[in-house]
Amino acid sequence: MRSTAQNAELALLLEVAGTPKPGNVDRHRDHDDLRFEHFLAGAVGARPGLERAAAGEPLGESFRHAVEGMSEQRGGNTQFGAILLQLPLVAAAGVEDRQLSPESASAVVDATTVADAANFYRAFEAVDVAVDEPPEDMAALDVRRGSDAVPVLEERGLTLADITERSADRDGVAREWTEGFRRTFAAAESIASGEGPVADRAADAFLELLAAEVDTFVITQHDRATAERASERARAALDGDIDPDDLAAEFVAEGINPGTTADTVAAALFVALERGVEV
Amino acid sequence: MRSTAQNAELALLLEVAGTPKPGNVDRHRDHDDLRFEHFLAGAVGARPGLERAAAGEPLGESFRHAVEGMSEQRGGNTQFGAILLQLPLVAAAGVEDRQLSPESASAVVDATTVADAANFYRAFEAVDVAVDEPPEDMAALDVRRGSDAVPVLEERGLTLADITERSADRDGVAREWTEGFRRTFAAAESIASGEGPVADRAADAFLELLAAEVDTFVITQHDRATAERASERARAALDGDIDPDDLAAEFVAEGINPGTTADTVAAALFVALERGVEV
Repeated sequence: MRSTAQNAELALLLEVAGTPKPGNVDRHRDHDDLRFEHFLAGAVGARPGLERAAAGEPLGESFRHAVEGMSEQRGGNTQFGAILLQLPLVAAAGVEDRQLSPESASAVVDATTVADAANFYRAFEAVDVAVDEPPEDMAALDVRRGSDAVPVLEERGLTLADITERSADRDGVAREWTEGFRRTFAAAESIASGEGPVADRAADAFLELLAAEVDTFVITQHDRATAERASERARAALDGDIDPDDLAAEFVAEGINPGTTADTVAAALFVALERGVEV
Repeated sequence: MRSTAQNAELALLLEVAGTPKPGNVDRHRDHDDLRFEHFLAGAVGARPGLERAAAGEPLGESFRHAVEGMSEQRGGNTQFGAILLQLPLVAAAGVEDRQLSPESASAVVDATTVADAANFYRAFEAVDVAVDEPPEDMAALDVRRGSDAVPVLEERGLTLADITERSADRDGVAREWTEGFRRTFAAAESIASGEGPVADRAADAFLELLAAEVDTFVITQHDRATAERASERARAALDGDIDPDDLAAEFVAEGINPGTTADTVAAALFVALERGVEV
């Protein structure tokens, strides 16, 4: 039987293999400087950090370790958000003898510390992550400050759960942390109830997620109107009004990369594998 | 820095990602019951066994462990030969502080024991591997007997090196074991000196290897004439007389699957990664 960390790594691999996932690197599509093989190396590199989380080691340190390993390839940021979203689930599955549920994952979130937050900030030093300008009152907590922000975290006593809560309104991964991984578990259900190759089901789940809610990474890279149009196009693909492969070409042409939706799929795949979905 | 076992696992992933690799599952091609995602799960599952070999644990036991982990997916045999070919290299890189060379790998082969041979046979019980009928004088040592052959091994005092030597004339993986991993290191050189995505270079190495020598797995599945024609077609692809993608379609139509050549590429990728090729 695969270990918890093996399921997490396999979920990262199945996520990038699923195709078509319009706008993202997948089995059939590379971006210019970010290629399929970078995601393979990213998943392999992340594994020791995933193993730490599954073994019950501190979440922030496990995350930083996973991101540093993930970054040992030349594509840059491949799975930062996916790992962040997976990690409380991995910890819950690992330490709770695989009793993975929204409640057990949320309990992991609630138990995060200021040290976890500090390591989360340090992880940003390993790789360039595209993020929004923070609101004015959070400038001191801009993640791009990396470890320079740690004294502020400590002074204010902010845990990693506090940090994600402050970003939940503009970051879909943070929102999952604060809302009990609602979309992740729903997508896992969709993957588990599907038929055929698991990677194909993951690609279907991607379209369903994108159709249902705007991708916050698209908002970050473009604006809300673009993100809303992307979701509208995903609905058109689900309704059969446009071929998902054509939509993939359309998104590439427009530089639309629904990365947060892909992160959610990676976390959902992990939940599905833990619940017994067979590859 | 990736560990030795991480490089071995990544090599398995890059091998199956490389395209076109005519006749084999690759990033763009599935077989009916053997799909890309089975190779992803196979590579993830093999890792604990690869870790054992890198840590200097007995080769046969590490192999059996890797194959059992590899088999935890529904596609059947994905990387049996690739892991067998990688393993002495992984052990040499692991225990010799990464001084990987044909000599250090051959020293690992020479040091194998009867217990290693016994675990090699036991590994065949985890998964169906397509093999030839053995020569008459080796019927008692038919690998398909699995652990039933172990008393014979013990009685005759045969090590795993003895077993591979007996198969070297009809099995390309066994031949690498006995001939100092000649083709593996040559292909690693070719991959290291190439440019562009590593998986693309691996696909090039695949064609070069197949053009240079017949694939013994094609002989097993068909016959020598078919294998020779496959190599001839690979030469035509290298010469630009046929597009490799068209050759891939041709091989699929004819049921030609140069699996031993793919195994060699996986081992070569491991050597290349150990020697510093960057993804």
